[in-house]
Amino acid sequence: MAHTTKPGSNVISFDPYKTFDPKPVWAHATSSKGPGRIVCTAGQVGADENNVVPPNIDDEIALAFTNLRRCLDATGASVTDVLKLVYYIVDYDPDNRPHSKHLAKFLDGHRPTTTLIPVAKLARPDYHFEIEATASIEQLPRQVADVVVVGAGLSGLSAAHEIQKAGMSCVAAEARDRVGGKTLSIEPLNDGRTIDLGAAWINDTNQKEVFALSKSLGLELVQQNTSGSVVQEDIDGSVSQFPYGSVPERLSEPNGVDNMVFIRDLADEVSRSLNLYGVGKNENAPDHLTFEQWLHEKGAAPTAIASATVWTRAMLGLEPSEMSALFFLDYCRRGGGLSTMRSDRKDGGQYLRFAKGSQQLSLGLAKLLRPGSLILKSPVQQIQQAPTGVLVSTARGEILAKRVIVTVPTPLYRLINFYPPLPEAKIELSQKNRLGYTNKVMLLYDRPWWRDAGLCGLLQSFKGPVAVSRDSSVDETGQFSLTCFTVGQPGRQLSKLRQHDRYERVKQHIRKLFGAYTSVPEPINISEHEWTMDQWAQGCPCPASPPEVLSKLDEAMRATHGKIHFAGTETAYEWKGYMDGAISSGKRAAQETIVALTQSKL
Amino acid sequence: MAHTTKPGSNVISFDPYKTFDPKPVWAHATSSKGPGRIVCTAGQVGADENNVVPPNIDDEIALAFTNLRRCLDATGASVTDVLKLVYYIVDYDPDNRPHSKHLAKFLDGHRPTTTLIPVAKLARPDYHFEIEATASIEQLPRQVADVVVVGAGLSGLSAAHEIQKAGMSCVAAEARDRVGGKTLSIEPLNDGRTIDLGAAWINDTNQKEVFALSKSLGLELVQQNTSGSVVQEDIDGSVSQFPYGSVPERLSEPNGVDNMVFIRDLADEVSRSLNLYGVGKNENAPDHLTFEQWLHEKGAAPTAIASATVWTRAMLGLEPSEMSALFFLDYCRRGGGLSTMRSDRKDGGQYLRFAKGSQQLSLGLAKLLRPGSLILKSPVQQIQQAPTGVLVSTARGEILAKRVIVTVPTPLYRLINFYPPLPEAKIELSQKNRLGYTNKVMLLYDRPWWRDAGLCGLLQSFKGPVAVSRDSSVDETGQFSLTCFTVGQPGRQLSKLRQHDRYERVKQHIRKLFGAYTSVPEPINISEHEWTMDQWAQGCPCPASPPEVLSKLDEAMRATHGKIHFAGTETAYEWKGYMDGAISSGKRAAQETIVALTQSKL
Repeated sequence: MAHTTKPGSNVISFDPYKTFDPKPVWAHATSSKGPGRIVCTAGQVGADENNVVPPNIDDEIALAFTNLRRCLDATGASVTDVLKLVYYIVDYDPDNRPHSKHLAKFLDGHRPTTTLIPVAKLARPDYHFEIEATASIEQLPRQVADVVVVGAGLSGLSAAHEIQKAGMSCVAAEARDRVGGKTLSIEPLNDGRTIDLGAAWINDTNQKEVFALSKSLGLELVQQNTSGSVVQEDIDGSVSQFPYGSVPERLSEPNGVDNMVFIRDLADEVSRSLNLYGVGKNENAPDHLTFEQWLHEKGAAPTAIASATVWTRAMLGLEPSEMSALFFLDYCRRGGGLSTMRSDRKDGGQYLRFAKGSQQLSLGLAKLLRPGSLILKSPVQQIQQAPTGVLVSTARGEILAKRVIVTVPTPLYRLINFYPPLPEAKIELSQKNRLGYTNKVMLLYDRPWWRDAGLCGLLQSFKGPVAVSRDSSVDETGQFSLTCFTVGQPGRQLSKLRQHDRYERVKQHIRKLFGAYTSVPEPINISEHEWTMDQWAQGCPCPASPPEVLSKLDEAMRATHGKIHFAGTETAYEWKGYMDGAISSGKRAAQETIVALTQSKL
Repeated sequence: MAHTTKPGSNVISFDPYKTFDPKPVWAHATSSKGPGRIVCTAGQVGADENNVVPPNIDDEIALAFTNLRRCLDATGASVTDVLKLVYYIVDYDPDNRPHSKHLAKFLDGHRPTTTLIPVAKLARPDYHFEIEATASIEQLPRQVADVVVVGAGLSGLSAAHEIQKAGMSCVAAEARDRVGGKTLSIEPLNDGRTIDLGAAWINDTNQKEVFALSKSLGLELVQQNTSGSVVQEDIDGSVSQFPYGSVPERLSEPNGVDNMVFIRDLADEVSRSLNLYGVGKNENAPDHLTFEQWLHEKGAAPTAIASATVWTRAMLGLEPSEMSALFFLDYCRRGGGLSTMRSDRKDGGQYLRFAKGSQQLSLGLAKLLRPGSLILKSPVQQIQQAPTGVLVSTARGEILAKRVIVTVPTPLYRLINFYPPLPEAKIELSQKNRLGYTNKVMLLYDRPWWRDAGLCGLLQSFKGPVAVSRDSSVDETGQFSLTCFTVGQPGRQLSKLRQHDRYERVKQHIRKLFGAYTSVPEPINISEHEWTMDQWAQGCPCPASPPEVLSKLDEAMRATHGKIHFAGTETAYEWKGYMDGAISSGKRAAQETIVALTQSKL
């Protein structure tokens, strides 16, 4: 073949007549398919965000490729947009090419031109490998629309769908090459067994928006398994079990269980007492204290603190010290209160799952949009308000709109240049709100071995690295899995390890806890998606506010900025941080734009 | 901020999530803002036009960056269009990075991607540093206009304004990022004290065009100071003074003063006798002799030769041997004759200046043009005449016109590809005409100290490096300055020094000459613009012709080439080489196109 191209690629790879065969990882010549936006990267080295280089060459090279991908992602380019790679290798040995396997994995069948340059040294003595790319991004014709929605996660898609249903034109611009935001469903073995690496659970009673959408899309739901016992790891590392819905009979700390129950009930009660609308000063849920300070003030002993730490880790990927008391209790309130939010049973936050994964919601919504109204791989880089409209600049071209809905989390506002700039309140939200470390290590098994031992699959650990696990099986497809939450500070620590070592630590932990009651088999697959490493998420599920932010800025978060509206699950009144909240926030913002555009026509 | 861009830049600089901080001089990734014209430079080394490398690494690196800038300028790219830099450094030492300060100065806040490659050697053993760039130039939509004017100096702007006043459409394409050509006014201390680095003087009687424009733009004029004595440096280096308007009482050469006066009066008389129209053979002003040969033939002794050398240096930046006698005398004729042209008093060439600088003329004209009809940073690269019109290709896109006016000096015709090619006569003019070295080193002072000593600020030196100085103060703004002309051969010699050393030599010279009569303070600022280093000028003020060119080709210079007309001060009938001539030549060419376009409509 004289030339090849991968589907979706902007690059043609040429193997000219009378040249030697460069397959599988490079081509003698490449061309963009048309005029494009040119992307260059600096020489990327294997150094982390602190410019620290891993001790072994293999990790160093892997990190250089990761950095290269980050560079391409940031600009909106894909690997298949790369025209050329140049790599510089210190002490190059033609008989030992450790970069080859990384290169092949990175390119995944795409064939840019490449030049390998052996060098004596690089800019710093600890650099041994450097790689740079040139790419070309196809530019779309300039579009005009009533509304542009920034982000095609659940809130963005819901907004776009709502606006189109109202007869207005709407384009959704998404940075990723897929829809769904923090819903991400994969079939790790390509055999129909689907697992969710992001959001997974809903219910059919108080999560009306997401349930209605599920029904309208005809998605099959499965009920969360709560039959059997929970395995508990105490603060001293001792393991016990207790029936789901109950509490441990005894823990190592004297009165630890009672104190824990007292604190739990207090948090539940206070959270239920808060207002959904008009968050402000509240004596029971102070915004000037961290949640940790509040726990201490209420007399929480070590076990209760450890228990509450499992809540903030599992629910927000953060420690109790990293959010205000008001933030946490308000967050619970929006999911019906602490106990409802944490429940895996009817009306609880974790009652139902999707047999084929929660991303079906987004994929289904995307199909309902008018052809051409969804543009992927198009990070929005600038939003400029002018008398003639709002000009939205994406990596693939411009869209002129009357109104814009921004659905990205507040900390990601900094990825967009706003003209005029965002008001102080939104900038403060963007700077102070923090996204947590929430990772789900998905252990896939051939059978639900824990059930045989009378366990429901739930574990709760006061030590980690797994803070909580849940049975996330779909029995009818033979998908039997444990979702292991490595979250908050232990998750961040674990994240410093290589993936292989991280998986080993998770398996060790599972073996320790469940192994106390049954024999634990080896999983047939392990998958994860580290959301903090994903630059279009930067963490999940929902940013949390430190003290003195929420009471001051809750409504400012939802306020329009000229002709720009703001959505995202973070802005939801109910089930904030959940899929239900994402949908309702998108619909709320859509209604705002529909009203504004309708009024402007009158 | 995740991404940044400088105003006017075609490049977005990205600092991707989870990469280390690359500020202030580079970015991990860059993207052009849309499809563009790609610019690549070769690896630029620190070698001059003769491929000679300066002896120290700092000068070598500085020259490499200067060469890189020349490359970008030539293509029409700006530094802010650069996507990527790669630099190659011999004997690289991470603890000693002499390129850093040059890089920061070159980029001035722009952040391209960079790759540093330590190398064992470069193409030649005397090269130690090499830098290459990739850039992207934004392309404007194709325009259509009645007339395209090439160059937005005074002649181009005058032409464009005249054409638009006649109701026709006209686009002016300028290579630089500013209007004004060889008028360039700056405020070196940003305090309202303006100095002219280019053309400065006019008068209000026989320079009707420039005076009328000044009046219509409401520009404030100041009168040249001629009160007091001129300081004279003789051929033996001795210093004397004499009242302005007179001649030195005595010079070292016996009869030197008388012979000098004789030659001066003869040149004045002959120049006044010449025809403004129809330059041809003239016995008194032969075109087959150089002006130097003519001087010898007329009996000029060393002092008279030295004096005439000051004329050609100060007036054209060249030596008497570098132009024909006819050229020099004809040049004087067009400014009213030698004595008028050289006079700083009423009716003379140097009678008035602009309080806020002569560039106000161009800036004022540019404001009168229709919005969008002036495109900067758009060097014209090709002019193609076809039956459908004249296609003008600039670095930023094409313009299809009915007529074109080229206003650049004849030696710069070679920067444009003409199809069909220019006629032989214009090619000969372009090849034989020569631009001089005229540099004004501007010494700014807190007070006009020379006036206290009874000096007018004028000096005349038969030795150099300063051939002539003039008081260029604007008393009402507190701008007190001496314009020091380092011109002709001594200027070219001086230009080989670094700027700092050049300034020292000028100050030494001023101290020597004026210091004979008063104490000379240190200037508070020194500025210059070496026009020979500026590729869109390549010298100033006006190309001069060697023997056997002017008598043959004077009218050919103004002749149209198909639908292309030619302007520029060089083509003026009166005040050739002056601002007045620039304006009249532009208006003349505009009238030609207006007549041609009007006739074609009849």
